Amino acid sequence: MATLVDTWFSSHRARLQRAVEACAQRSAWTPFIESPSGTLHPDGAKAAGQAWFDATLGTSFPLTMPGEIGRTGAEVSPYTGEPLGVDYPAVDPDALMRAAKAALPSWRDAGVQARVGVCMEILDRLAADVFANAFATMHTAGQGFMMAFAGSGANSLDRGLEGLAYAYKAMRDVPEGAVFERRFGGAPVRLRKRYRLIPRGVAVVISCGSYPAWNAYPALFANLATANPVVLKPHPECILPMARAVQIARATLEEAGFDPNVVTLAADTRASPITKDLLLHESTAIIDFTGSQAFGAWIETHCTAADVYTETAGCNAVVVESAVALDPVVDAIAQSLCLFSAQMCTAAQNIFVPRDGVRVGEERVSPAAFSEALVGAIDRMLADPQHAAGICGALQTDAINDTLRRLADHPGVVRASVPYAHPAYPNARTATPLVIRASAPDSVYQQEHFGPVGFVIEADSREQALEHASADAQQFGSIANYAYSVDPRFCAAIEDTFASRGSSVGINLLGQRPINFTAAFSDYHVTGLNPAGNACLTDLAFVTRRFRIVQSKTEEPCPASTTS
Amino acid sequence: MATLVDTWFSSHRARLQRAVEACAQRSAWTPFIESPSGTLHPDGAKAAGQAWFDATLGTSFPLTMPGEIGRTGAEVSPYTGEPLGVDYPAVDPDALMRAAKAALPSWRDAGVQARVGVCMEILDRLAADVFANAFATMHTAGQGFMMAFAGSGANSLDRGLEGLAYAYKAMRDVPEGAVFERRFGGAPVRLRKRYRLIPRGVAVVISCGSYPAWNAYPALFANLATANPVVLKPHPECILPMARAVQIARATLEEAGFDPNVVTLAADTRASPITKDLLLHESTAIIDFTGSQAFGAWIETHCTAADVYTETAGCNAVVVESAVALDPVVDAIAQSLCLFSAQMCTAAQNIFVPRDGVRVGEERVSPAAFSEALVGAIDRMLADPQHAAGICGALQTDAINDTLRRLADHPGVVRASVPYAHPAYPNARTATPLVIRASAPDSVYQQEHFGPVGFVIEADSREQALEHASADAQQFGSIANYAYSVDPRFCAAIEDTFASRGSSVGINLLGQRPINFTAAFSDYHVTGLNPAGNACLTDLAFVTRRFRIVQSKTEEPCPASTTS
Repeated sequence: MATLVDTWFSSHRARLQRAVEACAQRSAWTPFIESPSGTLHPDGAKAAGQAWFDATLGTSFPLTMPGEIGRTGAEVSPYTGEPLGVDYPAVDPDALMRAAKAALPSWRDAGVQARVGVCMEILDRLAADVFANAFATMHTAGQGFMMAFAGSGANSLDRGLEGLAYAYKAMRDVPEGAVFERRFGGAPVRLRKRYRLIPRGVAVVISCGSYPAWNAYPALFANLATANPVVLKPHPECILPMARAVQIARATLEEAGFDPNVVTLAADTRASPITKDLLLHESTAIIDFTGSQAFGAWIETHCTAADVYTETAGCNAVVVESAVALDPVVDAIAQSLCLFSAQMCTAAQNIFVPRDGVRVGEERVSPAAFSEALVGAIDRMLADPQHAAGICGALQTDAINDTLRRLADHPGVVRASVPYAHPAYPNARTATPLVIRASAPDSVYQQEHFGPVGFVIEADSREQALEHASADAQQFGSIANYAYSVDPRFCAAIEDTFASRGSSVGINLLGQRPINFTAAFSDYHVTGLNPAGNACLTDLAFVTRRFRIVQSKTEEPCPASTTS
Repeated sequence: MATLVDTWFSSHRARLQRAVEACAQRSAWTPFIESPSGTLHPDGAKAAGQAWFDATLGTSFPLTMPGEIGRTGAEVSPYTGEPLGVDYPAVDPDALMRAAKAALPSWRDAGVQARVGVCMEILDRLAADVFANAFATMHTAGQGFMMAFAGSGANSLDRGLEGLAYAYKAMRDVPEGAVFERRFGGAPVRLRKRYRLIPRGVAVVISCGSYPAWNAYPALFANLATANPVVLKPHPECILPMARAVQIARATLEEAGFDPNVVTLAADTRASPITKDLLLHESTAIIDFTGSQAFGAWIETHCTAADVYTETAGCNAVVVESAVALDPVVDAIAQSLCLFSAQMCTAAQNIFVPRDGVRVGEERVSPAAFSEALVGAIDRMLADPQHAAGICGALQTDAINDTLRRLADHPGVVRASVPYAHPAYPNARTATPLVIRASAPDSVYQQEHFGPVGFVIEADSREQALEHASADAQQFGSIANYAYSVDPRFCAAIEDTFASRGSSVGINLLGQRPINFTAAFSDYHVTGLNPAGNACLTDLAFVTRRFRIVQSKTEEPCPASTTS
């Protein structure tokens, strides 16, 4: 057992070390493969992933859990509209938590190096499984294949490795022991001190329905590295990719001789939810939550016995002040509204323009003309259904259609949301962006409308546009904001103003497409200074409280060897 | 302005760097002077401190505050029984918080190096003021002069520097910026990223009545370094040393050209408390609390909008299994019961012995004989009033006498608590240890009795003694536990058992006297795994959440310089 784990640690050590450096430098780096090109993967890898997914449909997922009281699962593919027909263990929360807790001591006692070695090996195996993960993510979250492959593959593995690297660094900051020598009045005294890293307890990781791996992996690996057993509670409509990850993690743990209950799955359905049972369970010491702002706030207020990390959502703003050319700007924004049907937490929603227009060269583009250009860009982007399918994917949840219906009658609608016809999946749940014109301020846009909804909002001036955008970001939450300006002084004001409101901003993103893209090892995701979440992916604060330090000190020499 | 602050940073840089190293190595180190010996301090330093204290009695403390609505203060010297007669600003919490908040932007924008330079300079000035601080602490907290000088002087400054060093290290972990270059499909894209450290907001630091500087300094400097203005709320009976520290901090800030309201004082009295107004204030972003377990728990549960750090109290245990000689062991424990009248959070309270006796060589010392030896050691230690005064100091609060009266009739009393006659202060509020015999388990000792109270508790066996001690530590809280054994296997069990219960332990402490001593840069104080507090002095977790990271990223070259 020790040998296998030692081998894992040694073989992954260089990558781990490089990841720790990347966290400090924060330039571009990834050890994982973002492209699904056949030349970069083993022969037949994509076909094998597809075959695994096809064979899994309509079966019992090969996973048993402690406290299993039956089977559960009611996932429906957003592409086919058909139930996946996959069932998972239904668990008794008490029994599951007991098993997770029982797995803690041996996992803790294995030590930092063994735990990190196992985590690196799990990451490696997940990386080898990216095609299977992509198909599972596509048919649960509704992501298009490319996003499911890259975003829920390499990009999510990056974030997992990043969380692991920070945990490793934070734990290494505490020496295993020290010798303390000084005089206390008389002769020199020597104390041998030992500092143990003690996990908090069981961590409940709640993954979301639209982008499960990206937020779950950092929490999973930060918790495992710091010796907290993980109960992974997937969104009821997005279980399969997480079940697959749990399966791989458990197999790796077992192979290394560890109790597989270090990682467990707590699946449920909307009809019979178990989330609150887990969150409020007396054994729950850590909560990592990705999901709605309202539920995140509820957890922050009510789960005070646990160490709580939330990543939720906000209404992300775009301030458009000026540009060299209009088309690249509206194309970039249009893509953000279309991409994965704006179900990413970094998707733009509220596009602020000055009432007297966006400066483009010597011209002023009026809000009306800007809206028209944006709508035109969206229409062009989605004209080809094949292309539309690749960009938009499918709607993860029917609730988005409710939102779109509710807003359809708004007097400011300049582009109606209609479905696009998916060329491969005629029953796919799809929607193209709804675009609405409004004037600042208006409560209609001062909340997140999850899904493809964009507002073009007139403000009295560019300063007012920035003021509204940043104040809303602070008050209603935001994860990523954007701005376009060719005026260096206004760009400086944009940076300062968003920073003073605790919100991040990307300026003049044109070559970085999609603008939504957030890079592990470089972008700090979520500031914790507005209602869009309290935790950052990934900084030291994300990991340092997951373990505590217990010290013992012993005076030497042992009194048995001397007469004092 | 910049020049002075730069000079400060440069002149203190070597000490800061050494402190960062000390935090990582955790062996013995201090840059401050623990001894009041005249040869180690400027001529007349002690006399000047005494003169300052004498001249301060019966005056208005020379400090004004924003939002001042009058004067307040009702401190009484535990030594003389007389009011100090010192008054301080009484403040309107709203106005004070507004002023603290207004001081934030310029302090934040000064940058890490400037803030840390100012903090190092404040520490230096506090170090030059240790005699004044000692007299102020003595006549408010009730500490004896030596403890007030060393414990509330060098030892507290160490903890402050330690908190500062961790904050510095954590902030340096975030680069100021990065260049991010990669391809997004087409040509390489270059993003200039900037990572700003943003403070949470106003920090309310609540210092305790018995040991104000030791816990307040780490919080003060960790908050200041990370740009959070500090409202220092001292215990109503222990304002003077904190007012002095605030005065020095404000003078240093002003000299450097900063808004002095970066550090403010919020004094009150028991009759008109303002603590909850501050804790629940909408501008309060961070709370550092030292005080009772009950109030700490209330804060943890109710102040969910703030980032909360608590250091409270517990019932610390001693497990006495065996020894080479009995006298050194009972002397060490007796001292812990006497020292500062057991008003330290690391004082022993519950002394567990096996029913069949403590092994000493070939002998077994019965619980009765052990109690007798302990009482004898206490009596010997306090026989000389001069010596007793040096060890015991005075009782910080009258409430301890209530405790002693309540327990005086317990049938297990083997040593009654009587005052000792202080040779210099005939009206000093003093008490010697009350010692009570009990059998495990008994609710009488399963709580902290603040003050000089010790229980000698019989357990069925040494294993049961360890079991009771560690289980109580976990359930009722403990900050420091102790054990004596010459059996290496039992010592290992002691370490493992306390660690598994989330509590620290010191084994065979004999040469380290007092056993209560906790060294900054070496001892991790409070585990956060039991009810004695959620924060550790000092680890990375103590500092990493005090600031957040806001990023901006800008695509380069600027669009104004190109046609895209």
